[in-house]
Amino acid sequence: MKFEKLIGERFKEKPADAIIQSHALMMRGGYMKQITSGIFSQTPVLRRITHKIEQIIREEMDAIDGQETLFPVVMPATLWQESGRYDSIGNELIRFKDRYDSPMVLGMTHEEAAVHLVREYGQTYTKYPFMIYQIQTKFRDEARPRGGLIRVREFTMKDAYSFHTSQEDLETYYDKCYQAYKRIFERAGLPETIAVASDSGMMGGKIAHEFMLLTPVGEDSIVICSDCDYSANLEAAKSIISNESTNAIEPLQKVHTPNAKTIDDVCNYLNLPTIQSCKAVVYQKVETGEYAVVFIRGDLDANEVKIRNHLKCEIHPAIIDDNSELCAGFLGPSNFENVTMLFDESLKGISNLCCGANKVDYHFTGFNIERDYGKVDYYDFAKVIENGICPQCSNASLEISRGIEVGNIFQLGDKYTRAMGMSYTDNNGDTMYPVMGCYGIGVERLAASVCEVRHDEFGPIWPMSIAPWQVHLCCVRADDEEAKAFADELYKQLQEARIEVIYDDRAVRAGVIFSDADLLGVPIRIIVSPRNMANNCCEITTRNKAIRTESNSSDVIANVQKMIVELMG
Amino acid sequence: MKFEKLIGERFKEKPADAIIQSHALMMRGGYMKQITSGIFSQTPVLRRITHKIEQIIREEMDAIDGQETLFPVVMPATLWQESGRYDSIGNELIRFKDRYDSPMVLGMTHEEAAVHLVREYGQTYTKYPFMIYQIQTKFRDEARPRGGLIRVREFTMKDAYSFHTSQEDLETYYDKCYQAYKRIFERAGLPETIAVASDSGMMGGKIAHEFMLLTPVGEDSIVICSDCDYSANLEAAKSIISNESTNAIEPLQKVHTPNAKTIDDVCNYLNLPTIQSCKAVVYQKVETGEYAVVFIRGDLDANEVKIRNHLKCEIHPAIIDDNSELCAGFLGPSNFENVTMLFDESLKGISNLCCGANKVDYHFTGFNIERDYGKVDYYDFAKVIENGICPQCSNASLEISRGIEVGNIFQLGDKYTRAMGMSYTDNNGDTMYPVMGCYGIGVERLAASVCEVRHDEFGPIWPMSIAPWQVHLCCVRADDEEAKAFADELYKQLQEARIEVIYDDRAVRAGVIFSDADLLGVPIRIIVSPRNMANNCCEITTRNKAIRTESNSSDVIANVQKMIVELMG
Repeated sequence: MKFEKLIGERFKEKPADAIIQSHALMMRGGYMKQITSGIFSQTPVLRRITHKIEQIIREEMDAIDGQETLFPVVMPATLWQESGRYDSIGNELIRFKDRYDSPMVLGMTHEEAAVHLVREYGQTYTKYPFMIYQIQTKFRDEARPRGGLIRVREFTMKDAYSFHTSQEDLETYYDKCYQAYKRIFERAGLPETIAVASDSGMMGGKIAHEFMLLTPVGEDSIVICSDCDYSANLEAAKSIISNESTNAIEPLQKVHTPNAKTIDDVCNYLNLPTIQSCKAVVYQKVETGEYAVVFIRGDLDANEVKIRNHLKCEIHPAIIDDNSELCAGFLGPSNFENVTMLFDESLKGISNLCCGANKVDYHFTGFNIERDYGKVDYYDFAKVIENGICPQCSNASLEISRGIEVGNIFQLGDKYTRAMGMSYTDNNGDTMYPVMGCYGIGVERLAASVCEVRHDEFGPIWPMSIAPWQVHLCCVRADDEEAKAFADELYKQLQEARIEVIYDDRAVRAGVIFSDADLLGVPIRIIVSPRNMANNCCEITTRNKAIRTESNSSDVIANVQKMIVELMG
Repeated sequence: MKFEKLIGERFKEKPADAIIQSHALMMRGGYMKQITSGIFSQTPVLRRITHKIEQIIREEMDAIDGQETLFPVVMPATLWQESGRYDSIGNELIRFKDRYDSPMVLGMTHEEAAVHLVREYGQTYTKYPFMIYQIQTKFRDEARPRGGLIRVREFTMKDAYSFHTSQEDLETYYDKCYQAYKRIFERAGLPETIAVASDSGMMGGKIAHEFMLLTPVGEDSIVICSDCDYSANLEAAKSIISNESTNAIEPLQKVHTPNAKTIDDVCNYLNLPTIQSCKAVVYQKVETGEYAVVFIRGDLDANEVKIRNHLKCEIHPAIIDDNSELCAGFLGPSNFENVTMLFDESLKGISNLCCGANKVDYHFTGFNIERDYGKVDYYDFAKVIENGICPQCSNASLEISRGIEVGNIFQLGDKYTRAMGMSYTDNNGDTMYPVMGCYGIGVERLAASVCEVRHDEFGPIWPMSIAPWQVHLCCVRADDEEAKAFADELYKQLQEARIEVIYDDRAVRAGVIFSDADLLGVPIRIIVSPRNMANNCCEITTRNKAIRTESNSSDVIANVQKMIVELMG
């Protein structure tokens, strides 16, 4: 198409609210327009990119026997009540009533709809395994949309659901999908995406992986071992802390620690290393308001997800009011009524701890948990630290990186099929519940992620596979009759050769033409100009500047066709 | 793909709630599953059909310089307040609040979002004209979903919006789009679709057309002239009634008409022809509750849409309570306070009418409107009747048919751009509001409409252009080794030839194979059987039974390829 007919505006200035490059560059390039927080319209440039991503995903899903379906955006609450999620999910799930006062929800994921669609179909074991997927709009009422298309409220998602008669079969298919995901990210231009073990969160089930694109601007923390292939989301990574026991057990002493507000203050004041201290982190159960206190070594942080999974309920950081018997800031192990006491493994084996004495401005020293509090069970509640011990190779070689989650896969078990009464008769005539896997990719986030790691200061550098066009034809000096006529003819030939081309023949300065082309990020650029005409050639360059060549005018189409094939990889 | 892996169930029995064939056959064929009233999930069979329809639409929109975008399903109420439709549209518009208590709506159409996307882009006249479109999920909370996919609450819609600097330019583009729609329906297998003038309803604007598929099960009434090319939706069709004046003006008489409840009762009792009577039809304005009485010739019906357009407000049939001064059943022209009196053109020129005397059990005869009530303006409020006068050729040749609306196009004028402050500077430097057109097609309804007119008692007969597969390969007697091996090989070859094939190699009776194939409605069927094998051939038939041939085994692929090309038309 002609550049001058392309709707959307391009800007020189970075938008004030853009804190990451993909957001800034895609706004500057007129890829989308925000309607309200976390909700965007897509212009034709972005829509062309998302179409190509969708098609890559579709091909890879079809290649692992996926069958494309379409589930509704709006579903009756009754369906979500069957699975229990109508009540268990918070206000990211939009709930409303229809004209007949029936409660409805907006689909933020479609396990319930998937089970509904195949509940009767899957009644005998011979139908298994099968996988169904859709590419459809999702709405999640995120509390804090951010980063342009990275975290939004409405987005296009490919969500797939597989059904199996055994855990073993699920695992076989899960691995197939894992490989398909690797291919999708590679084809979309993100071969560096890694898969990390993750927490399955609200989805239920046990085994889950996230596909992470490592970038400093990512909002997820990922633990990676530099000595082996271990990797996990920080939320799911096991923390291993070993303590050497000190020999001499000291007596318990209550000491006055005025103005010591933090664990560092206390340790400084008492001249003790932080790893000799025991910190209390307090949470509250959402439903009951009951407190749960996690004791952890003073130098470590608590991992809220691990605590939530242990308690099997929703929690939030505690608000300790004046009526509570908990003495905020000076909390130590003690038996309070209706308070759960949890101990992190990092405290195991440390003698003579310093900890709160449950009295304002007082701490204990020489606290030995078993002697002074009692026998306790230790669990892993800590966040992994830089240079922590790898749970796989046992070296102190864990590194923490930031990443964007570009996809995820979950083994769901029979959580949904059991809750929603989807069963089948096995070959012994017994009634069984199928096990499920689910597999998601956010389309717009994937596009933005590619931009995040494939750009320069002038704009995105789209890989050929998802670029909005394959070729950007620039006629520099459209006022020059000869150049314009040649470019017009080239445009025609490129179209006839079925090459996706955007043609800029505006009578504007070359600088404007090129900076706009940079913002569109089309991989191959052809430059027609009077100077080139004089030499009977065109310049052909790539957006990533790897190639900068001249082509004899008569060979342009053939040369470009060859480049397209090469750049498709 | 293999038929036995295809999810979805097929049924012999027509579902109890299906009153039209497309609904019954598509349910029996496992095309979709209802989740709740008017909301369906699509199985892979239907999704393949809708994909093809979407692609046809996309190609035709691109061919008239459409640029594909994507607008959000969820929009802030503020956007709809800008246009005024947040308040003017009834409860078919879903309204809810997000987690921050901001009012939101579900997109049932996207004029507001379209204007929002291009409001800044379109600030100079040089940018015009342009057209943007999307293919996206819509939700309309219909009061009475019916007919399977014909009238639903959630559906996929192609909605396009064009922007112009003059009415003339809009009309030129409108005609282009009209022609594109003709091509879309032709390509999708509905060449018989006709365009009829329609009322523009809530969309605003004046000129509008609906594309109608004539079928007795349609829910719209269409007026077609059998002598010329005039056609219109019944709601929009002009009613022309000519009355011959009688010579002798009679005196006004109030007569007792006991037990005369209807206009027919009264005319029978008084021995007058119905066309000599004046009927009162009473509406109420939704906002104020005020009455509006329409007087119309006794043999005709009032057209609510015409009355609404005349009054420029929402109305509903009146509920006349005992406190009202309106004497229900005996209402005649008179001056009531706060009641609007409207007169249909059918009353013009009739002398000596019979009409209500505004007193229970009494009517007037010899009522002459000008003499007995006063001078009035007559407007067209009547529904066109069978054999009515054509407003184009003036013959009494109007026929009324039923149809399904498969698409619509509207000239919107500047209703939205003016309300939402989208303006441009013209070549004189003046600030102007662009005029818009909008153009819709419902994807699933189009699929169902094709089925409605292309089926037999055994299932749908899909046109090649939108069929879920091109070829249905049936191996009859899969237990026969030779037949199975040949069919397997043919399946492989068909896939290699990039022919879309579904392969039924189930070890079931031939009758089951064929009845399931009938329900899938795939245009070309290849039958491999031991009997055919003995003759070194395959049977090739078309679903519409037009072709039933045998092909030498070695020529099957070539023959099928040729048939596909022919059937694509």
